[in-house]
Amino acid sequence: MAPSDLIHGDPETTRDAIMQATYQALCEHGYAELTIQRIGDEFTKSKSLLYHHYDGKDELLLEFLETMIDRFENEFQEDTHEAPRARLDGILDYGLAATLDEERAEFTRTMGELRAQAAHDDRYHQRVARLDESFRDHVAAVIRDGVAADAFAAVDPEQVADFVLVVLNGARLQRVTGGTEGDMNAAREEMRHYVRCRLEADE
Amino acid sequence: MAPSDLIHGDPETTRDAIMQATYQALCEHGYAELTIQRIGDEFTKSKSLLYHHYDGKDELLLEFLETMIDRFENEFQEDTHEAPRARLDGILDYGLAATLDEERAEFTRTMGELRAQAAHDDRYHQRVARLDESFRDHVAAVIRDGVAADAFAAVDPEQVADFVLVVLNGARLQRVTGGTEGDMNAAREEMRHYVRCRLEADE
Repeated sequence: MAPSDLIHGDPETTRDAIMQATYQALCEHGYAELTIQRIGDEFTKSKSLLYHHYDGKDELLLEFLETMIDRFENEFQEDTHEAPRARLDGILDYGLAATLDEERAEFTRTMGELRAQAAHDDRYHQRVARLDESFRDHVAAVIRDGVAADAFAAVDPEQVADFVLVVLNGARLQRVTGGTEGDMNAAREEMRHYVRCRLEADE
Repeated sequence: MAPSDLIHGDPETTRDAIMQATYQALCEHGYAELTIQRIGDEFTKSKSLLYHHYDGKDELLLEFLETMIDRFENEFQEDTHEAPRARLDGILDYGLAATLDEERAEFTRTMGELRAQAAHDDRYHQRVARLDESFRDHVAAVIRDGVAADAFAAVDPEQVADFVLVVLNGARLQRVTGGTEGDMNAAREEMRHYVRCRLEADE
């Protein structure tokens, strides 16, 4: 789900190139050590362009988060051709994958750093809340489709979506701060039980 | 579950007083702005005592985490007089409470800051992993007791405990970075369904 074209692809616009440099510099230095100069070091075009448009690292990072939200929302819109159950399984398999390749592991660590800023900075809090909300809306839509198609029991789509968000955020946190492959397999297995007995059948 | 006697009580030993000052300074300044001097400012006894024994803020914070692990482990040992189901409900009600009082909210934010360090500092990673492990062992013991007493279905206690840890870590992260009261209520409600259909009955 990582919009990896932005992060690793050939940037189409100057803004994309700036966002890519922001991401690279954040991966390399971490939030605390990041400066707009270090973002400039990753930027291959004129640095004055960068310094002219942005006042500091937070402005760039907040715009990076905005870009991620847009990309996620676009990506979610494309995911409607499969059956609800397959879409839900796809979300859970992605979020609770036992291992991550290096690119995704780095993305998870990096987004985790930005997420951590939300604890004491309202600007980050707003973006992280919107990112969570857009994911939650997406899951709720999948559940709603499944209920409408009688593929799922008559659950409350928003409530199930909230729960899926909590579980996937837990997986995300644990990957970054002490989790093991076993945790993810266990969580995936128990979510399978949950889906089976909560969504497949009326209690 | 916050060992609040350490954090807010009257410290019994000099070490407890140092740990209390460490916690207070971390609450006040956050990790990035924390210095051993600022911890010293919260310490009511001789500051030379503090500077003599500790090289820097990380040494103090890591010891604070160690202390938390010990306290949690002691607390868990005392919780064996109730029935397994009541103990599990207690854990879930605590971890997924809709709202937190100010003291616990501050504790959650502060521990979240220390947890975030685990992403790029192996010393924090080790402690956070141990904290998670001790919680996971505790939940697994509750489930195991329940299975032995035929109060729960024949589930894998470790696997269920891993899942509970993921869910509670997700709740913890979401409280700090953009969650709402509604998220917690939804997660608690869905965990009730999970417990009902996974633990109360054989599938």
